[in-house]
Amino acid sequence: MRMYDLIEKKKSGKELSTEEIRFMIEGFTDGSIPDYQMSAMTMAICFQGMNERETVDLTLAMRDSGDVLDLSKISGIKVDKHSTGGVGDKTSLALTPIVAALGVPVAKMSGRGLGHTGGTIDKLECFPGFTTGISEETFLKNVNEIGIAIAGQTANLAPADKKLYALRDVTATVDQMSLIASSIMSKKLASGSDAIVLDVKTGNGAFMKKYEDSVALAKAMVSIGTMAGKKTAAVITDMDQPLGLAVGNSLEVIEAIETLRGRGPEDFKQVVFALGGLMLQFAGRAANQEEAMQLMQSVIDDGSALEKFAEFIRAQGGDASYVYDTSLFPKAAYCMEIKAKDSGFVHRILAEEVGIACMTLGGGRETKESEIDLSVGILLHKKNGDSVKDGETLAVIYGNDKEKMDLAAGKVFHAYEISQEKAEKLPVVREYIFS
Amino acid sequence: MRMYDLIEKKKSGKELSTEEIRFMIEGFTDGSIPDYQMSAMTMAICFQGMNERETVDLTLAMRDSGDVLDLSKISGIKVDKHSTGGVGDKTSLALTPIVAALGVPVAKMSGRGLGHTGGTIDKLECFPGFTTGISEETFLKNVNEIGIAIAGQTANLAPADKKLYALRDVTATVDQMSLIASSIMSKKLASGSDAIVLDVKTGNGAFMKKYEDSVALAKAMVSIGTMAGKKTAAVITDMDQPLGLAVGNSLEVIEAIETLRGRGPEDFKQVVFALGGLMLQFAGRAANQEEAMQLMQSVIDDGSALEKFAEFIRAQGGDASYVYDTSLFPKAAYCMEIKAKDSGFVHRILAEEVGIACMTLGGGRETKESEIDLSVGILLHKKNGDSVKDGETLAVIYGNDKEKMDLAAGKVFHAYEISQEKAEKLPVVREYIFS
Repeated sequence: MRMYDLIEKKKSGKELSTEEIRFMIEGFTDGSIPDYQMSAMTMAICFQGMNERETVDLTLAMRDSGDVLDLSKISGIKVDKHSTGGVGDKTSLALTPIVAALGVPVAKMSGRGLGHTGGTIDKLECFPGFTTGISEETFLKNVNEIGIAIAGQTANLAPADKKLYALRDVTATVDQMSLIASSIMSKKLASGSDAIVLDVKTGNGAFMKKYEDSVALAKAMVSIGTMAGKKTAAVITDMDQPLGLAVGNSLEVIEAIETLRGRGPEDFKQVVFALGGLMLQFAGRAANQEEAMQLMQSVIDDGSALEKFAEFIRAQGGDASYVYDTSLFPKAAYCMEIKAKDSGFVHRILAEEVGIACMTLGGGRETKESEIDLSVGILLHKKNGDSVKDGETLAVIYGNDKEKMDLAAGKVFHAYEISQEKAEKLPVVREYIFS
Repeated sequence: MRMYDLIEKKKSGKELSTEEIRFMIEGFTDGSIPDYQMSAMTMAICFQGMNERETVDLTLAMRDSGDVLDLSKISGIKVDKHSTGGVGDKTSLALTPIVAALGVPVAKMSGRGLGHTGGTIDKLECFPGFTTGISEETFLKNVNEIGIAIAGQTANLAPADKKLYALRDVTATVDQMSLIASSIMSKKLASGSDAIVLDVKTGNGAFMKKYEDSVALAKAMVSIGTMAGKKTAAVITDMDQPLGLAVGNSLEVIEAIETLRGRGPEDFKQVVFALGGLMLQFAGRAANQEEAMQLMQSVIDDGSALEKFAEFIRAQGGDASYVYDTSLFPKAAYCMEIKAKDSGFVHRILAEEVGIACMTLGGGRETKESEIDLSVGILLHKKNGDSVKDGETLAVIYGNDKEKMDLAAGKVFHAYEISQEKAEKLPVVREYIFS
């Protein structure tokens, strides 16, 4: 078999066989197939596409390029959750203790954030002492005893995907549906869970800006997961504005804690409940979304979700008193109000701009080596559909450097699209995608 | 400027500017643009194409990536000739002395052959002592005094093309019209002639197998040459069978000499005259093809073309007595007749198969390092349109190794497509392409 022939085959619109896809991914991983052949192939795929079978084969070949975790030492049905990424997305922080409080184990490998969307580990490090550098033994013990453990990714999951993504990133071949779906799913399938729940964002701040593309990606991923033998479902959620009101590490942690207390923003709660509902169903804890919602509300109302969160933070070395007194989190030195210069209605908040504003303040990583400032961020006072009066506060910026705050303020101000026309409040949970 | 953006632009079907194409070729040549980005770009070009302006810009950028020869020390109008390559193509050997005998200077850089089509230098080395390793001084002196000089390529002509072709060759991106045309023309434009005559082969043994593709390539190259300020024209010639009767180094040299004596095969003479006619017109020696043909016939009839050939061979160290007595060329030890097994008409002779048969005999290079056997080859006794009787000789194979001859015989026999239906004799010169 020669990579040349496979490129030629795909270029002319033909289907690659299971063996051919495996040969290609194995050769690319071990370096026997050079980058320049692989980038010609991915460009050909951008034009000719891959069918469902090819996409599943590509995913499985990438999954098998590294470690495939065995979570059988954890009792119960393990459900993994993945989000395609958005601004203000602190879903895992609230979702994890809620489902764990209902007996669904959460064993998660998480990465740090890069760019304008913060990573879960960065947010958890707002708790002094908290660490994800725990041994495999502690990890398994904590999941079995508490119901939650989150570790930094140490296993070599889907290295082929890592290598392929890096190549696609510099050859303008990122935006192809089969390549995107297989990239995400190869890592999810390698992480050893029994079922997978996907949060596919849609809108200006999402990787998929068009609604139909978001649905297509969700369908592709659900199909891959299902064909690979895992229960899989997806929720399409809105990213035409940041999720919730808080953007920035400690601000988001506080918002998640408020949500566990039943006082969080409604849109954020709806996303948490939609995803949590699917997780509870897959884990056999609820028969349908309605029952799941009631169960989730009950662990918020009786405080057991919040208690579970504190237990988890404590088990990984963090100071859990912060869970009960969020005023302990370090505060930024300055705040600055962004005011409307006209009256009207908010039609859109460019989420990416708000994310970049947060990064400008020091709250995100521009490179892998950047140190991040956990205290800075943005609190939105107005969201899509809200009416606004001239001079009214749209958002407040929290920062430690006035120059950076001026830059960030400009970005946040311009992120708001306000016009006279009345704006509709669209539901944050748009659609469920089942196999 | 970033290569990433250029890939994205071409991928989405947009036109690249002159500056962008120059940036890309300069960066690729100096290594600042890596192979994997360039191969993604060439694949995108295969799908989205390049317009006329982009193709010219690509050609000029590749031309300027290395030396551009200055032939101003040679008096007269220099006309270069290029063939897209075929089997039995000894055109340069006969064409060069004919036009030189008519006062048109020929200053040629030639390469060695690789694969099943022999190179001009290999053929010339059939003359004992002949060398292309001559100094620049001798080269210029010979062109000015004798009218012909052929040197091995020492200048660094269009290195970007060399590098790009090597990459296209392993990424299945060779067969794109703009890339093919710019590859050929970048080298031609760098070689310093005033005008360019192109022999574009068409048919089963040609790089372009479909007639319309051959015409498209010819048009693309003529357009590039013209836009780059050089008089350029092309002739589409048949390669649905080998050209002439001889395939193999010394056999082809003998056929060229016979042609200079007025005794060569008709199809070969027609190709030589078609190309020579254009060269004479571009050089201002003839007003039209008819006048040119008469002039060429006159230098054959009066022996001055043959004399010019001998003069040229002698000037580059070769034994010119071979020109006058072709029985001096070394002969293969054995010959083997290939006989028809049915009666009928020859419809096609797979030229590539005949070329590979010659290589099998030792007459071509399989790798750059191969030593070639100048004495071996094939003489065709039947050509397209000829009637054949059962048992009649189709071709004769000349070799020095009986095992290799058996292999070659099988290939030559299968190269002949014979059927009962009467076959037409198509003209070898199909069409002239002018700007």
